[in-house]
Amino acid sequence: MSRYPKPSVTVDIVVFSIFDDHLKVLLIKRGRPPFEGRWALPGGFVEIDESLETAARRELAEETGLRITTLEQVHTFGDPGRDPRGRTISVVYCGLVQADQVSPKAASDAATVSWFSAFRPPALAFDHQQIIRCAIERLRQKLEWTTVGYELLPRRFTLAQFQRVYEIILQKPVDKRRFRRKILAQGELVEGGRARVPGSNRATKHYSFRRPHA
Amino acid sequence: MSRYPKPSVTVDIVVFSIFDDHLKVLLIKRGRPPFEGRWALPGGFVEIDESLETAARRELAEETGLRITTLEQVHTFGDPGRDPRGRTISVVYCGLVQADQVSPKAASDAATVSWFSAFRPPALAFDHQQIIRCAIERLRQKLEWTTVGYELLPRRFTLAQFQRVYEIILQKPVDKRRFRRKILAQGELVEGGRARVPGSNRATKHYSFRRPHA
Repeated sequence: MSRYPKPSVTVDIVVFSIFDDHLKVLLIKRGRPPFEGRWALPGGFVEIDESLETAARRELAEETGLRITTLEQVHTFGDPGRDPRGRTISVVYCGLVQADQVSPKAASDAATVSWFSAFRPPALAFDHQQIIRCAIERLRQKLEWTTVGYELLPRRFTLAQFQRVYEIILQKPVDKRRFRRKILAQGELVEGGRARVPGSNRATKHYSFRRPHA
Repeated sequence: MSRYPKPSVTVDIVVFSIFDDHLKVLLIKRGRPPFEGRWALPGGFVEIDESLETAARRELAEETGLRITTLEQVHTFGDPGRDPRGRTISVVYCGLVQADQVSPKAASDAATVSWFSAFRPPALAFDHQQIIRCAIERLRQKLEWTTVGYELLPRRFTLAQFQRVYEIILQKPVDKRRFRRKILAQGELVEGGRARVPGSNRATKHYSFRRPHA
């Protein structure tokens, strides 16, 4: 349809999880050039007849074995020169998972797959460090206008656990009273009984999300 | 770099303004197929050596004569079948302008250029109706976590004018007290004297943004 040279189009996927009290990102070690042996986000070329989201889901499954229901588009990176092979435009998706419910494993295209600190990842291929920063920024913005945490928390959780998710993402303390007022006002939580706090006589309320949990 | 068929990559630009008490969007009448004679967003193909944002700025200027400093990427649309010419992925940018400070005019590629209601545009080419809805949704989300209005308000404005901008975008009434408290708490406004309310003896405070206004 166009007489002009066309860029290549890829998808890259930023999968976040929270464990060991840190925000983690899932990376693969590249098994081929360019940047062979470097860590990178899972991703690859969009096929001519698949939607962008389908491509993201497929590449993630192929490279890490993960199947994520909810992937959200974050941003498209297209600076000329970001890929040494030639002009490449990458549409970036983000997904959140509970790490203990998934077991990523390297598949065909990637040599190794592992979790790293999202704030201090190793040296990365392409502009993937910038992409991760952008995805963190988007996640932080999202906290301001909606409830984030559904995919990151266990089925039943305390408000203290929920608050800690926000603190880990924002990398700063969150005021307990304001947080509870805001979260409860959004009407997305239902109370689910009380449980003894380990090593104490106190009991803490547990909550779950109103939506059916995956 | 790739043996596989590549999609084409375009940019489309959603320019919003507020006047006549409505949210308006800038459209061009297409001067050539496909969808010749239909209204559409300004946009076109990304050149192989220009960044996505540069392409958006260039296409907007070529098709409407508008030069906008701040364009923000909104979303990338890539469903197979969205362009009858073949697989086309469009990266969408959004800009805000004061309509009385610009005078868009049709240039080379477009037959006519005009403002329309963003909520009730005419029949549009491609998936541009869906793109406009997505840009409105993003604008609404943005109101939740930052101050929107800098580009839409005159240099000096009243809080009532500012509130009206929010109401027009959200399409619902905004609580005056909560709005004022929230806006003033963000610390981005400076007071700029008082002006007589036309047809009354009252005087109203005027404000301007702390940043240098373009």
